[in-house]
Amino acid sequence: MTEKAVDAALSALDELKIELPSWGFANTGTRFGKFIQPAAATTIEEKFSDAAQVQAVTGACPTLALHVQWDIPNGLKGVDTVANLSAKFGILAGSINPNVFQDQEYKHGSVGNPDAGIRRKALDHILECVKIAEALGSRDVSPWFADGSNYPGTQNISKRIGYFEQGLKEIHAALKASQRLLVEYKPFEPAFYHTDIADWGMAFLLAKQAGPQAFVLVDTGHHYQAQNIEQIVAWLLHHNMVGGFHFNDRRYADDDLTLGSIDPYQIFRIFHEIRMFEKENGKTADIAYMVDQSHNLKGKIEAMIQTVCTAQELYARAAMVDYERLLQLQEKCSLVDAEETLRGAFWQDTREIVREWRVARGLPENPLEAFRSSGYSERITRERQEKNASLGASYA
Amino acid sequence: MTEKAVDAALSALDELKIELPSWGFANTGTRFGKFIQPAAATTIEEKFSDAAQVQAVTGACPTLALHVQWDIPNGLKGVDTVANLSAKFGILAGSINPNVFQDQEYKHGSVGNPDAGIRRKALDHILECVKIAEALGSRDVSPWFADGSNYPGTQNISKRIGYFEQGLKEIHAALKASQRLLVEYKPFEPAFYHTDIADWGMAFLLAKQAGPQAFVLVDTGHHYQAQNIEQIVAWLLHHNMVGGFHFNDRRYADDDLTLGSIDPYQIFRIFHEIRMFEKENGKTADIAYMVDQSHNLKGKIEAMIQTVCTAQELYARAAMVDYERLLQLQEKCSLVDAEETLRGAFWQDTREIVREWRVARGLPENPLEAFRSSGYSERITRERQEKNASLGASYA
Amino acid sequence: MTEKAVDAALSALDELKIELPSWGFANTGTRFGKFIQPAAATTIEEKFSDAAQVQAVTGACPTLALHVQWDIPNGLKGVDTVANLSAKFGILAGSINPNVFQDQEYKHGSVGNPDAGIRRKALDHILECVKIAEALGSRDVSPWFADGSNYPGTQNISKRIGYFEQGLKEIHAALKASQRLLVEYKPFEPAFYHTDIADWGMAFLLAKQAGPQAFVLVDTGHHYQAQNIEQIVAWLLHHNMVGGFHFNDRRYADDDLTLGSIDPYQIFRIFHEIRMFEKENGKTADIAYMVDQSHNLKGKIEAMIQTVCTAQELYARAAMVDYERLLQLQEKCSLVDAEETLRGAFWQDTREIVREWRVARGLPENPLEAFRSSGYSERITRERQEKNASLGASYA
Amino acid sequence: MTEKAVDAALSALDELKIELPSWGFANTGTRFGKFIQPAAATTIEEKFSDAAQVQAVTGACPTLALHVQWDIPNGLKGVDTVANLSAKFGILAGSINPNVFQDQEYKHGSVGNPDAGIRRKALDHILECVKIAEALGSRDVSPWFADGSNYPGTQNISKRIGYFEQGLKEIHAALKASQRLLVEYKPFEPAFYHTDIADWGMAFLLAKQAGPQAFVLVDTGHHYQAQNIEQIVAWLLHHNMVGGFHFNDRRYADDDLTLGSIDPYQIFRIFHEIRMFEKENGKTADIAYMVDQSHNLKGKIEAMIQTVCTAQELYARAAMVDYERLLQLQEKCSLVDAEETLRGAFWQDTREIVREWRVARGLPENPLEAFRSSGYSERITRERQEKNASLGASYA
Repeated sequence: MTEKAVDAALSALDELKIELPSWGFANTGTRFGKFIQPAAATTIEEKFSDAAQVQAVTGACPTLALHVQWDIPNGLKGVDTVANLSAKFGILAGSINPNVFQDQEYKHGSVGNPDAGIRRKALDHILECVKIAEALGSRDVSPWFADGSNYPGTQNISKRIGYFEQGLKEIHAALKASQRLLVEYKPFEPAFYHTDIADWGMAFLLAKQAGPQAFVLVDTGHHYQAQNIEQIVAWLLHHNMVGGFHFNDRRYADDDLTLGSIDPYQIFRIFHEIRMFEKENGKTADIAYMVDQSHNLKGKIEAMIQTVCTAQELYARAAMVDYERLLQLQEKCSLVDAEETLRGAFWQDTREIVREWRVARGLPENPLEAFRSSGYSERITRERQEKNASLGASYA
Repeated sequence: MTEKAVDAALSALDELKIELPSWGFANTGTRFGKFIQPAAATTIEEKFSDAAQVQAVTGACPTLALHVQWDIPNGLKGVDTVANLSAKFGILAGSINPNVFQDQEYKHGSVGNPDAGIRRKALDHILECVKIAEALGSRDVSPWFADGSNYPGTQNISKRIGYFEQGLKEIHAALKASQRLLVEYKPFEPAFYHTDIADWGMAFLLAKQAGPQAFVLVDTGHHYQAQNIEQIVAWLLHHNMVGGFHFNDRRYADDDLTLGSIDPYQIFRIFHEIRMFEKENGKTADIAYMVDQSHNLKGKIEAMIQTVCTAQELYARAAMVDYERLLQLQEKCSLVDAEETLRGAFWQDTREIVREWRVARGLPENPLEAFRSSGYSERITRERQEKNASLGASYA
Repeated sequence: MTEKAVDAALSALDELKIELPSWGFANTGTRFGKFIQPAAATTIEEKFSDAAQVQAVTGACPTLALHVQWDIPNGLKGVDTVANLSAKFGILAGSINPNVFQDQEYKHGSVGNPDAGIRRKALDHILECVKIAEALGSRDVSPWFADGSNYPGTQNISKRIGYFEQGLKEIHAALKASQRLLVEYKPFEPAFYHTDIADWGMAFLLAKQAGPQAFVLVDTGHHYQAQNIEQIVAWLLHHNMVGGFHFNDRRYADDDLTLGSIDPYQIFRIFHEIRMFEKENGKTADIAYMVDQSHNLKGKIEAMIQTVCTAQELYARAAMVDYERLLQLQEKCSLVDAEETLRGAFWQDTREIVREWRVARGLPENPLEAFRSSGYSERITRERQEKNASLGASYA
Repeated sequence: MTEKAVDAALSALDELKIELPSWGFANTGTRFGKFIQPAAATTIEEKFSDAAQVQAVTGACPTLALHVQWDIPNGLKGVDTVANLSAKFGILAGSINPNVFQDQEYKHGSVGNPDAGIRRKALDHILECVKIAEALGSRDVSPWFADGSNYPGTQNISKRIGYFEQGLKEIHAALKASQRLLVEYKPFEPAFYHTDIADWGMAFLLAKQAGPQAFVLVDTGHHYQAQNIEQIVAWLLHHNMVGGFHFNDRRYADDDLTLGSIDPYQIFRIFHEIRMFEKENGKTADIAYMVDQSHNLKGKIEAMIQTVCTAQELYARAAMVDYERLLQLQEKCSLVDAEETLRGAFWQDTREIVREWRVARGLPENPLEAFRSSGYSERITRERQEKNASLGASYA
């Protein structure tokens, strides 16, 4: 590793901030049942408290994404509580995530529902989220639309495009100048025949029509098998349309596994495309990096720390790519050398560099160990296990 | 349509019996929440009652698959209740389905768990299911193993093969001569990195080692994208290893959509392979056809009736394939003519034939309409909606 | 079938014109070798002659797509020859297909090549194709770009987007007012890591930037596993961006099988989306339907006739969907009824209707039989087999 | 890295032998055309010569897989030539690969063809290959069967299983005691509807029935999307049925990219399963590792050297897994720690260790550089380019 490369890695680490999701500290599962952990968080205070632990040992996670229905069920009236917790735990409110999929009336869609009343209700909820975001000083409103259908013919795909166009325009009109609307796409689940915003092309067109403060959100697990995610990222960057990422990994569907657990080389390549874009354009890409995983069986806080460390190690690798050399080799179509220039950066073991960076910033050298030896886990297990044991987890 | 073909279809319809799943009348959903229907069944009596409605209008569904944990929670002690309901509603107990995935202790596996105590518990439960099946006169014990892992390295794939070999042998040893053990496979979900019985090859080898009364169960939704299911069926038939089917359809993953809703031609081709096997071997394949769907949004009973009708219409098509002609054309590699001989049978609209068959058997001409006009749906909606409204459906 | 539905089918059949590809009469294969047929066409005259046979028996195929490098190797100078053959055989020149993938210098790309000289050569070839199209009275210029790379890092994905934007703009600028540029997308093959125009989103954005006469071409085989093609078509129609189709079917990759051979229900659903769009907007969608198959083993002309008949039968089904009823059921979320309204149209056997339509138009009732009894196949087999036998087919 | 781990890596490198494929030095391409390289090998002598270069700089490739039809077109009569070249270049003849897919008469299958005469011809060719292997002292006969069909109904899947069972038994009966038959599987291409030996289950059953000297060959590119290859390897190892590997990588289909170019973590995990098996059973798995790539655009010899180096670096990582610790963590279901124990070995940069190993064995520290500075590439380019330029590469 050259000194220049190491410096690039260290300064990249300074820049990388990763938002934690409040729901990542809660119990999760599959349709076959939830997996209950005694130490899982069930209140917004517990979620802030747990996030603060991750931030304490990693120093890279200053914000917490909030899910309005689960975390701020009283809506605007609940903002003060959140603000107080934010101050108490030193964690800022991050992106605001509306929920227009959980209520039974959304079973045929929210903003794309054929029923105008349900569309209205969904939009009103999101508009309130915009206000909540404003009140909390959060920049990004990040709705995920589960809208779709399960059987051919049961919904009018075409009309629903129109409903989404109208709805997102209305939401965009309510944004303050400092706010952004992030439009997420996902091929399937919970809808199994068609999902209204199924791929990046659909998200792109809707965001474009909504207005200049709307951008696309890329969830790394929301793609078809074999799809080239880094290429999609390159296209979105090219059009200045990347708003943020939801980090996770997957093997089959939207498995929501921890980042880099299945295909770390792909995550590295995504980071590389972003770094390339930044170097070629001489500016930092304004991207919100967020974790969105469903680490069902791993300890919630441990999984989060592991994810942040993995992201840092892979990001450091991407920062160490010899960009000038790579450009020249690409230009000449020197295939083997160009590939090794990129892959060689991936082969590097950056764990030591990230450790050094931590020490230099006054952070624990080994965040996972630091967390484990803190006694926090034992304490919350004691405090929460009784309450958690009473939670239903059954599918049937 | 030749008269011979129509006769073949009619007699095929006489033979086709389709088992209904008790859980197909209950509320289902995705990991994002259950979809609550006011008329969904929540008790074993309601499930028998609903199944009897399907049988009344289709005449093709004499049995009900039971899920021990959900339907017979008291185990052997609950057998009498089931037997009484069976008599009351004129629906026989069908396959007995153990549940070794729902309890929290199975989160790292059941029969494949590294903990010997948990393996024991899982086996004991299945052994009790064998006895329950015996007591109810059910032939098939049909465990589904959700066993697997979410991350590389976290479980020992190889050792777990051994655990499964031992476990299934023990279960097999407990079977009465009239009983069968059906081994199901599934590539993923709820495990996302490895599933212990992931494909037909693994199920085949385990069943073979378990003993001669063990067979493979093919769930039409449990395959990789693009996998040729009818070819797998042909292989299993060739080795006399098809025990049964779980009918459903899918587009992406194990979507559990209603049969024939996404790719009806494929279901037809599966039926065709079975018919071919039967003709070439001059015997009926001893296959348990069972529905296993998660029709989240369709009315439970309506979806079941629709499924049975679709199965009948597709089965009738398969029965009408001109077998002798097809064989000759295949022999000569007359591609276009062979294909049209098969596909031509699929092109045929068999709805009228199935209607005629129903009338001749004293069944309602249009089962769905007959059900709708029976008033049953309105009655159970009234009776059940209050109880169902109180059910939790939340993910968070 | 109601009279109204049958009338809709008959008038739909009048409208449906399907362009044949010149290369569909030639020998094709896989990378493991070409499959040689004694009667395959190897000259442009033979291709016109064969296409005329398909038109003679189907009456639905008035045009022939031409591949410049293979069919008009002398470029503009070869236009007269083509025009004469067109007149001689009564088949109009259809879409003009440039070839910027076959020459060795395109191995790292054509319009996306890092070498400006190669980009120039590729553009010049396409610009000549625009002129050829003009000279032949062809409306559509339809380049397929095989551009891409095989290994991460070897090409600069981002820069290549820029090259394509520039290139397509230049091509668009050369179009006459009556001409169109069709931009095709394909996920992979022959490039295996990244393909510059990999999906409909990329094709859409490039076409939009190129100018108002640029549209997207949908090849039914160029999608990821499980992708919902009819939804993509709905989106493109919504934005008035569907230029044309390449018809074929597939199971795994871009298999180029004959239309409707693997998943006929999907083709029906695509037709349905188009019909819905036309009804909702009160206008005919201006779409060029073209066959693009690689029926390696089926007789070339037979496969083409089979394809046209299948397309007609499926299109007739789509025309018979009870549109008003479907809209109402979708509006009310009557899932089972809406589904059956759509799928019921698919269940219908339209072969008799298409036969009637043929008879009424003075066409042979059974096109395949008519072709077979014409003696044409025997004649060209005699005439061409010697020449074809000498063709190399080896991979190694 | 502990000393113990480094020692394990060094000794693992001593053991790892990788067979090169003669066809990997020849021009290859896709169905759209071959990519011609001026230095590609076209004769068996050139292939031996090129393989010797790879062996000279890597020391890990003592054998060359031979393709009978391409390399030994005169069959048994050509054995002496091969033996002489083997001696001349110091490269042993490796696995013997029959070709029963290239001749036109195999277009509907070889050993699975409905025509008994063609089945006979195919078997005779393979039987001659067994004799060739014997004469050359090669242990493994490794046929790949492209057999299958493109359209439903056109071939009798079931009968063809029987033909394969008979055929492989006959081949097995001809094996000398020291020989092995390797049965390869592949989901599709060149057949697009069904492939007779499509997955590991089919290969397993056929090999088992053929006899005790038949084993399964795993080509890393011959799987469905998302299939867990290391799990399949674990199953095959468990049944002592792994005969060998064909190394390559893929993103979409059977892309035949260079090993570890797309998903290096997966290759590492495959190696890990093999190492685990060896440790748990205290014996070396008797596996033939072979390269089988179609590096169309990379320099043939360079791509081969790169592949061998990548395999060594990944194999060294697998050798460094702390096996005892991993077993304990798996036993306890310590998910994060178990995962990090495995993935931590992957994170390690083993390039330095492999370099040290090379130096200690008298090999060039950097094989690629050593090859490049040898002048060999320039020489063969001069010598071969004229001949190669005259080769046809066209698809049409």
